[in-house]
Amino acid sequence: MARQEIVFKEAELDDAAGLADFLEQVVTESDFLSQDDDSPNMTVEETACFIQNHLESPNQVCLLAKCDARVIGVLNIEAASHVRVNHIGDIFIAVAKEFWGHGLGQILLEEAIDWAEHSGIIRRLELTVQARNERAVHIYEKFGFEIEGTKRRGAKTKNGDFLDVYLMAKLIENVTE
Amino acid sequence: MARQEIVFKEAELDDAAGLADFLEQVVTESDFLSQDDDSPNMTVEETACFIQNHLESPNQVCLLAKCDARVIGVLNIEAASHVRVNHIGDIFIAVAKEFWGHGLGQILLEEAIDWAEHSGIIRRLELTVQARNERAVHIYEKFGFEIEGTKRRGAKTKNGDFLDVYLMAKLIENVTE
Repeated sequence: MARQEIVFKEAELDDAAGLADFLEQVVTESDFLSQDDDSPNMTVEETACFIQNHLESPNQVCLLAKCDARVIGVLNIEAASHVRVNHIGDIFIAVAKEFWGHGLGQILLEEAIDWAEHSGIIRRLELTVQARNERAVHIYEKFGFEIEGTKRRGAKTKNGDFLDVYLMAKLIENVTE
Repeated sequence: MARQEIVFKEAELDDAAGLADFLEQVVTESDFLSQDDDSPNMTVEETACFIQNHLESPNQVCLLAKCDARVIGVLNIEAASHVRVNHIGDIFIAVAKEFWGHGLGQILLEEAIDWAEHSGIIRRLELTVQARNERAVHIYEKFGFEIEGTKRRGAKTKNGDFLDVYLMAKLIENVTE
């Protein structure tokens, strides 16, 4: 990967096709996502709508890692619009398998935390992660996420075995500069 | 309330208008819901679509408490369709303020647990509840829900004060009769 340039950027409308392709691919590559290959994929139009919605929301962002024109990683922050919970950002993160082990997820996470601290609205970032995915749990802890609880039967494998899932969160203090 | 007959039933398409009205009312009455009166309300058409979707899903149900023709309580179980997590039912429960304190929520909860045990698919029921809502927490515990974690800043008041929110869950064993 040494000579390939990776660009990190906010998803724009013309990333819709690339992001839809990436999401379709990534669910087949990892057993750690709550989505799986039975999940209905978003069409390109739905993905464009999703990106537009994020561009217009002060408390949502979709960050991409791209190699040339190809989307190879995504970190999405989803939040509700109503005041009671609009300070809570829910993180989804995925990296294409051939790029695992190069720290792309960590760069995306760093960007996302920085975005949240400057959002003026997000005061809590949360995510869920399978307890068996120790590598991911350690990375999240390194970035200040704490395990708040364990969801028993929070997911199941293709064989129907139940898995513990951690609820992790990091409190965000807004930075004004 | 002694002479009023309360009926508990699964929501059908012709409950759409009544359910939409009820949901619009209930968000103004309680500070304990994650929705609030800033939340966009569902139109009657959207509510009908929501009910239809639940009627067709093996892992979702919308239960109503009705007094005459009026909807006065709802317990909704929402679940995802993909296999990794289609055994998890997320509970939303609300009762009209003038009927608080008569145990309607408990009857709805009992019905919902019975429904889940006979669903053949739900193996975990989960819900979130503000930690300060002690009465509700005790009722959930009475029905076998356990606190799995505390979400710091899991909600905020209208004044912007952050609240702890419990993640509670009950494991379900399917009953075949």
